[in-house]
Amino acid sequence: MTGLDARDIEEAAARLEPVATRTPALTALSLDQAAGWPVVCKAENLQRTGSFKFRGAYHHAASLTARERANGLIGASSGNHAQALALAGRLLEVPATVVIPDDAPVPKLEGVRALGGKVVTYRRGIDDRDGLVAERADREGLAVVPSANSRRIMAGAGTAALELLADHPEIETLVVPVGGGGLAAGSAVIAKHVSPGIRVYGVEPEGGADTLLSLRCGQRIALPEPPVTIADGLGHSCPAPLTWAVNSRLLDGVVTVTDRDITAAMAFAFRHLKLVVEPSGACALAAILSGLVPHESGTIGVVISGGGVDLPTFHRLITATPQRKEPARA
Amino acid sequence: MTGLDARDIEEAAARLEPVATRTPALTALSLDQAAGWPVVCKAENLQRTGSFKFRGAYHHAASLTARERANGLIGASSGNHAQALALAGRLLEVPATVVIPDDAPVPKLEGVRALGGKVVTYRRGIDDRDGLVAERADREGLAVVPSANSRRIMAGAGTAALELLADHPEIETLVVPVGGGGLAAGSAVIAKHVSPGIRVYGVEPEGGADTLLSLRCGQRIALPEPPVTIADGLGHSCPAPLTWAVNSRLLDGVVTVTDRDITAAMAFAFRHLKLVVEPSGACALAAILSGLVPHESGTIGVVISGGGVDLPTFHRLITATPQRKEPARA
Repeated sequence: MTGLDARDIEEAAARLEPVATRTPALTALSLDQAAGWPVVCKAENLQRTGSFKFRGAYHHAASLTARERANGLIGASSGNHAQALALAGRLLEVPATVVIPDDAPVPKLEGVRALGGKVVTYRRGIDDRDGLVAERADREGLAVVPSANSRRIMAGAGTAALELLADHPEIETLVVPVGGGGLAAGSAVIAKHVSPGIRVYGVEPEGGADTLLSLRCGQRIALPEPPVTIADGLGHSCPAPLTWAVNSRLLDGVVTVTDRDITAAMAFAFRHLKLVVEPSGACALAAILSGLVPHESGTIGVVISGGGVDLPTFHRLITATPQRKEPARA
Repeated sequence: MTGLDARDIEEAAARLEPVATRTPALTALSLDQAAGWPVVCKAENLQRTGSFKFRGAYHHAASLTARERANGLIGASSGNHAQALALAGRLLEVPATVVIPDDAPVPKLEGVRALGGKVVTYRRGIDDRDGLVAERADREGLAVVPSANSRRIMAGAGTAALELLADHPEIETLVVPVGGGGLAAGSAVIAKHVSPGIRVYGVEPEGGADTLLSLRCGQRIALPEPPVTIADGLGHSCPAPLTWAVNSRLLDGVVTVTDRDITAAMAFAFRHLKLVVEPSGACALAAILSGLVPHESGTIGVVISGGGVDLPTFHRLITATPQRKEPARA
């Protein structure tokens, strides 16, 4: 019993169909050449609010009864979940409150507000974020929408893989980033259901490999040091219980990528796929381009999970990394 | 008699279906807010080789008899048509020769070669490019694939609008860039066929508005000065005869955008759509964001035509332009 099965993801897909973008599955000869295998990229950076997070946030919020969400939604995030939650609230016509660290980049705060979301800041490293969310939810009667550790968040996230495998049933290996683990869990459940022989690999940044450490230890383990990685969306310290229950059972393995692997993949996506991909969103692609994922035959599917990066940061990250020479996109 | 009718585009669509990417039609709340209308973007920068040019080049080349193309294809381009032609040759298993100015950026030459294309350079401003193509085609028995002035190139280009209007029949105004005019011509023919009341506007860069000048004069007119614009793909001096025959009859108007409008649209696409768009590719979006296109009700369709720009150039163009404040993508 994993707490998540294929029907959960199919139910989420039906709910998301009228509101989410069916993101494209992109291919390029240059990518196949660089990877050494046929590769298909699910471009979730083109999802509404710029990442796959909208799928889970909307599905979770829409699954609540009108009464449960009547006073509004609340969640904590310094990244893509924040805007996803704001849009979910807007579409469901209830207020959304997002708890964001006070050192978050101004565009992220503005992004949430532009969608009608309410921003509450906390002092990172000082305030108890989850306590603040719980206390405010209790006081104002708000429904908490977690960023990963929820059956419905996992189910919503898994719909991207469902679409990808419907478009490309020939995929034999699926590669997804692992942060909170919701995307990996939802993807693994649906992929093993629709393509029983498929292998599913998670990718973590070298400086935030809590799921890999936990797999090696056979139990949920917190990293001894705080995560250090440019992939800020994947910098988790410890797998969440619900996602761990799925991922520890279904993932065929987890590989890690360096910051340099990540920026090379971001540059590759810019040049050959014409996509803006944030560091966390580029990790699965990075693992493929760096030849880190075990694969012996057939097509590889990759989830490009988000594009939440501004141009100055993007340019700084790419130019700080010597780029490999690559052939042209086709 | 325009030399191009809807059946041409439908025939092209059938031929392209197995080889071209059905590019996504993307929407964003932030775009609707910025434009003041619902907007749908056909993201042809995600087409194979990074622009809509693959549609026309492949369709033209594949329409030739095996005997006509047996010795190979040849065409002239310093831009997206070059890689499109190289890929068309590769897929049709015939050699492709591309005649490129010797000052073209190295990545473009490499891009053509990586696809198996043969590069022949000429001295820009000294050699007669079209003469060189014709002479070589004659000598080696190659089939010339023009970049715009061909019924089949126009038909292939029009398939993007056909897909867009199939996905979004509610579009009441369609906005496309005008360079050689093939995309505008193909788009106008199919749009007026499937949506008789639709308005179709072309967009030219202020520094290369040969079609607008010609429309004002009621005949094909060459610009008195060479085009000066960052939209290098649209810097034509005079409308081509075949595309002019269609565009002069079917376009509801042509508007012009400044370099600043263009870079603002590129920045918008990076931030809100997560797309890498080259200057020429951003012109139609720029016209919408700058409020230049007449529109009174309903949805606007925009073709984002290409993404052929490297990161240093992209960064330089964007940072040279003060960015407007925009709300977040949704």
